[in-house]
Amino acid sequence: MSTIDLNADLGQGFGRWSLTDDAGLLDVVTSANVACGFHAGDPVTMQRVCRLAAERGVAIGAQVSYRDLAGFGRRFIDVEPAELTADVIYQIGALEAFARAAGTRVSYVKPHGALYNAVVHHEAQAAALVAAVLSYDGQLDVLGLPGSRWLALAGEVGLRTVAEGFVDRGYTAQGTLVPRSEEGAFVEESAMPARAVRMARECLVDAVDGSPVPAAVESLCVHGDSPGALANARAVRAALEGAGVRLAAFVAE
Amino acid sequence: MSTIDLNADLGQGFGRWSLTDDAGLLDVVTSANVACGFHAGDPVTMQRVCRLAAERGVAIGAQVSYRDLAGFGRRFIDVEPAELTADVIYQIGALEAFARAAGTRVSYVKPHGALYNAVVHHEAQAAALVAAVLSYDGQLDVLGLPGSRWLALAGEVGLRTVAEGFVDRGYTAQGTLVPRSEEGAFVEESAMPARAVRMARECLVDAVDGSPVPAAVESLCVHGDSPGALANARAVRAALEGAGVRLAAFVAE
Amino acid sequence: MSTIDLNADLGQGFGRWSLTDDAGLLDVVTSANVACGFHAGDPVTMQRVCRLAAERGVAIGAQVSYRDLAGFGRRFIDVEPAELTADVIYQIGALEAFARAAGTRVSYVKPHGALYNAVVHHEAQAAALVAAVLSYDGQLDVLGLPGSRWLALAGEVGLRTVAEGFVDRGYTAQGTLVPRSEEGAFVEESAMPARAVRMARECLVDAVDGSPVPAAVESLCVHGDSPGALANARAVRAALEGAGVRLAAFVAE
Amino acid sequence: MSTIDLNADLGQGFGRWSLTDDAGLLDVVTSANVACGFHAGDPVTMQRVCRLAAERGVAIGAQVSYRDLAGFGRRFIDVEPAELTADVIYQIGALEAFARAAGTRVSYVKPHGALYNAVVHHEAQAAALVAAVLSYDGQLDVLGLPGSRWLALAGEVGLRTVAEGFVDRGYTAQGTLVPRSEEGAFVEESAMPARAVRMARECLVDAVDGSPVPAAVESLCVHGDSPGALANARAVRAALEGAGVRLAAFVAE
Repeated sequence: MSTIDLNADLGQGFGRWSLTDDAGLLDVVTSANVACGFHAGDPVTMQRVCRLAAERGVAIGAQVSYRDLAGFGRRFIDVEPAELTADVIYQIGALEAFARAAGTRVSYVKPHGALYNAVVHHEAQAAALVAAVLSYDGQLDVLGLPGSRWLALAGEVGLRTVAEGFVDRGYTAQGTLVPRSEEGAFVEESAMPARAVRMARECLVDAVDGSPVPAAVESLCVHGDSPGALANARAVRAALEGAGVRLAAFVAE
Repeated sequence: MSTIDLNADLGQGFGRWSLTDDAGLLDVVTSANVACGFHAGDPVTMQRVCRLAAERGVAIGAQVSYRDLAGFGRRFIDVEPAELTADVIYQIGALEAFARAAGTRVSYVKPHGALYNAVVHHEAQAAALVAAVLSYDGQLDVLGLPGSRWLALAGEVGLRTVAEGFVDRGYTAQGTLVPRSEEGAFVEESAMPARAVRMARECLVDAVDGSPVPAAVESLCVHGDSPGALANARAVRAALEGAGVRLAAFVAE
Repeated sequence: MSTIDLNADLGQGFGRWSLTDDAGLLDVVTSANVACGFHAGDPVTMQRVCRLAAERGVAIGAQVSYRDLAGFGRRFIDVEPAELTADVIYQIGALEAFARAAGTRVSYVKPHGALYNAVVHHEAQAAALVAAVLSYDGQLDVLGLPGSRWLALAGEVGLRTVAEGFVDRGYTAQGTLVPRSEEGAFVEESAMPARAVRMARECLVDAVDGSPVPAAVESLCVHGDSPGALANARAVRAALEGAGVRLAAFVAE
Repeated sequence: MSTIDLNADLGQGFGRWSLTDDAGLLDVVTSANVACGFHAGDPVTMQRVCRLAAERGVAIGAQVSYRDLAGFGRRFIDVEPAELTADVIYQIGALEAFARAAGTRVSYVKPHGALYNAVVHHEAQAAALVAAVLSYDGQLDVLGLPGSRWLALAGEVGLRTVAEGFVDRGYTAQGTLVPRSEEGAFVEESAMPARAVRMARECLVDAVDGSPVPAAVESLCVHGDSPGALANARAVRAALEGAGVRLAAFVAE
């Protein structure tokens, strides 16, 4: 029987603003990537999401970012590695405070937005991220894109790495994500459940040219900030369960 | 033999800016109040101060503040208690990450600036601060003004409270601080060493009217952000040592 | 024939976040209170709202605030008057840049949130706000609560003052707003159009005890950040027009 | 008789923090690059610097930056051109408010830090900066590095461009600045006055290999944030005056 984790970005508001139906999505996912205040995530929201996640047994991950509220962390910043390391430690620690107060722990780290994309290739920033995790707690898992420098460097120093797939993004025949600016970058909602099942059961995904490509992932990411996000996440989960796939946080294994 | 703690506000810079000679002062004080990013204190600075403090065996305290970089935390903000609690938990957790990475822990909490003044009388904000400490870790000590609601409420729930005196501030005959806007608010540098010794050995301080008033304090605060701050802190320490006062962090007792 | 201005708070997003249907509301109101970056309002949003307002002939006002993104400007801050003056000048100037680029001007100033409430009674902050307007441009009008110190002090120095009424807020028999925490603070959407007409035509509003109280206002505020905000604003406008009330920006008179 | 402008970065503090002796330097320079709040520059400081500059007849320039207080604007940010344009308009407008209140105007724009370096080569960001100036006021001059895309694109659309030289930076034999990480990047203070005179009178600068290279500049930049900055700026000015060079803001010509 296959097992897969379902993760989503939660707590992506700030003060008066919010994007995600955190309570709703926490009934669906098994891992919550929680914004830590640098691209989103005010302390009240972080506290609430940690409490709700702890109540439901959902694993909590630190979704760390460049310091960029105005840009929602979606702009590459050429930050010095030592500063990035410190920024990431700061964010993990802040989230951990709420996780502990809720009776649980931060169990993994996932970079957000432009930082997520940067550490696919940017050696120095990927290393800075790994250094932050090691400095904070070598028991933390790391979540990211298969083939990224982030996962590779983390693996080299003995961190547990978890590769994730995207149910809503198109893949090239080479197994990389279709850039957001190109045709086929996004998958229609109706196609996502079947796509999730195929990734979970067969470790395959249909590329934009129709060819099946390997997708050896332990976690599937569903996005939470679109109008139909919750309904869509539920459909993905139902399809996985209907196909006999067990849903469980990777960190609980 | 008397024992006293010597504390100073450190790490009060942000990015390109700095105010305090952290390395110098860490050779003098026994407790470091470290800014946590809300009024000052970028992650790189926090990391460095924690490392230096750990190396010297100086106790680390979280100097928590309103979210107010532009005002350096010196402006009262009528924040909702629940938000203040979350803001403070966030700050303690962020600092703890650096303290742990340096092989030590945050051992106490001291409010900064306008928040320090507010919780002398502001019941709801004092309670919010206490709630934050309890939620985070009931083993943390709390540092503040004798007679403040902050220390009183913390004591009621079983937290260890530590009263501090100021070697550079004038006291009224009632034992309160002379307001900054009034004559006698500040003490000349040359008078501070003797004043520190009297507080440490006799638990007394000379008020502005010349009368001795009780000053039952376990810690003395020296300020670190004036041009002569380091020399002055050294003079205070030398005077205390010369008078046979033992200097030790209160948290180590 | 009666004439009234209809104003709404617009551009209340920040980066990835938004609250208001700016384009929709700009087809309804005659004056746009535009957030200037201190409680909300990133530059791209400010630029867009100014362009849309200029195209429609909607008057542009600077909705100035305490520096408080995390609190959306809803928390009183005990800022020094001189700092508040400078903060407000900064905000007006920033908005003016976009207004001019769109071929128009900022024509009035309205405080936001906690600052709006503070300057009803807070003499020093009200004076600081007036000083900012005078320093920037004495031709600007000022919008606020009837009876506020803000309008009174502005009037004393010769600024044109405009009193506004709220179609969605309850009034006491004394003509003040029912505090948000008390019963009757908010008016049902279905009652707003008739209420608007009465204020515009008769300068009266029904208080929570049923008694009619004077409401000598030149502008009516509709809120834009609720789900039904746009439909409601349209209903208010339609009712006013149906009752023969002319809608026009006060600054155009 | 030669004429040259002397410019310095001023107002580079934020709230409690400061870097530059603004009043002192304003007695020396003829143009003040004033931080506008994105990398430094709180409103009170901006107001004060504008007043002091206006009193002394010193020209005021908007020193615009990426939004990056934590990094002091020294980190490249891959911001969308349209966002950069809006960010820059916002900053110029905010500064203009203080300049007008002081009875003068913003007369030029100079990018700061990483943005200064980016627009030497980054076509899209250079164009975004030019678009901001054009959108705001085509009468503004632009100050920057000779040969930069920023000056080239500004010149193409008819803006007046002003090339600046650095009295404290080393030049390569090709006339570019020696990178900060390489030997010869910085010039000793004692060598700066003669260097300034040579640039002003002969339009030449000695490169690190000793060869003279052309330096056709209308303005010389002295830095204001080092301990000896003021004394050094005075020495440069005195040497220029002693050599018969007239000091005058380029915008006054």
